[in-house]
Amino acid sequence: MGLKLIYEGKSKLVYDVGGDELILEFKDDVTAMDGLYKSSVVGKGVLNARVSAYLFELVERAGVRTHYLSYDGGRRLLVRKLSMIPLEVIVRNYAYGSLLKRMPLYKQLQKLEPPIIEFHYKDDSLHDPLIIAEDALAVGLLTKEELNHIIKTTLKINEVLSNVFKERGLKLVDMKVEFGRAKDGELLLADEITGDSFRVLDGNGDHLDKEVFRKTKDVNLMIKAYVKLCKALGLDVSDVVSG
Amino acid sequence: MGLKLIYEGKSKLVYDVGGDELILEFKDDVTAMDGLYKSSVVGKGVLNARVSAYLFELVERAGVRTHYLSYDGGRRLLVRKLSMIPLEVIVRNYAYGSLLKRMPLYKQLQKLEPPIIEFHYKDDSLHDPLIIAEDALAVGLLTKEELNHIIKTTLKINEVLSNVFKERGLKLVDMKVEFGRAKDGELLLADEITGDSFRVLDGNGDHLDKEVFRKTKDVNLMIKAYVKLCKALGLDVSDVVSG
Repeated sequence: MGLKLIYEGKSKLVYDVGGDELILEFKDDVTAMDGLYKSSVVGKGVLNARVSAYLFELVERAGVRTHYLSYDGGRRLLVRKLSMIPLEVIVRNYAYGSLLKRMPLYKQLQKLEPPIIEFHYKDDSLHDPLIIAEDALAVGLLTKEELNHIIKTTLKINEVLSNVFKERGLKLVDMKVEFGRAKDGELLLADEITGDSFRVLDGNGDHLDKEVFRKTKDVNLMIKAYVKLCKALGLDVSDVVSG
Repeated sequence: MGLKLIYEGKSKLVYDVGGDELILEFKDDVTAMDGLYKSSVVGKGVLNARVSAYLFELVERAGVRTHYLSYDGGRRLLVRKLSMIPLEVIVRNYAYGSLLKRMPLYKQLQKLEPPIIEFHYKDDSLHDPLIIAEDALAVGLLTKEELNHIIKTTLKINEVLSNVFKERGLKLVDMKVEFGRAKDGELLLADEITGDSFRVLDGNGDHLDKEVFRKTKDVNLMIKAYVKLCKALGLDVSDVVSG
């Protein structure tokens, strides 16, 4: 069965492999500010695929159902084909980024206890606007039961990853997750779990995520941060960098 | 005791009269689009003061505590002095306006059942951004108990006004309310209840609110709509218009 490219996003290619499965191929491309800044750096695709595979396996072991099936060791993940819900679910442990823009009374990196969950409608032309959960219900994007499941699952994922990161001396600031429905209607965690989708700080308060590129526009600084993240998680990076 | 002007807003002047009371004076000014469009029309101040007084009395009789004390028959309300909470609380019965912009899957004037309540942080420089209720709690703008009280009270106000409007052949589309704390900490409905703060449609689907100005930039068309609103509510307008 050949690969049929069915979608190209900013950072991933999606291939149909027939049946109920897809291949996600992580590109080396980097974008920021709604695509205003674009660049590319060798190694990013492999590192993000590897981090995603590792963290999907980790949350699966904690009982979270995901679209992840297997990893080819390179830049590709085999995943289940889902009907995606066009929402970005953001969970925040510390105040950062757009949160500070919509509400200037937050202090940067203020601890959020309990974590804050917010929903954005995925629409590039509208810049993925913040909505309230009631909007998603009112327009029929999901049912009340699905909404509750997503909130509960997102908090669970956040707890699992926060703990793992903490054990490695890292702090999970915030994270974006997306969900989709399998054929039988089951909601599964989908998309990716990488430095493109979360913000994480090391012991020095340095970002090991895409914030490095947003701030410096320097892909080489960014790939160094991504390598650091992989090493902190105990992942092999010898095929990407020497030394 | 003389009047001391302590604040001038886009549509109201606020005078300190000593003690725990203030005078709200409704101006004839009209603004739209964050002040981009400005105009003025004789009669607006009196009509809005009159509608506000009438509707404050009405919700008070339904058991809602408000800052309203008395009306001078002209453009002034005597109100209690409050410490205002910098939030706009919006309750929506039908999809309209900014709701359609942040979530294009709504159909215009789609019935929202239950009504949707949303919060905006009052900050002109940020254009009163949408926030989520959890933001208001996390930055300490109000307590969880106050938030619940505000939600419950806003739904009550919405129910009372929707019913009154319905009896007069009008449909309450949405409404913005604001709350403040009295000296003893009690939360009271504050600000105004007028065609500047709600959207209401008559039997023909025509706006009897500031939407007329937003759409046409014609203050004369707008004041006609405000007169219609007063008449529909059974309020005397003979001091403002003839015939």
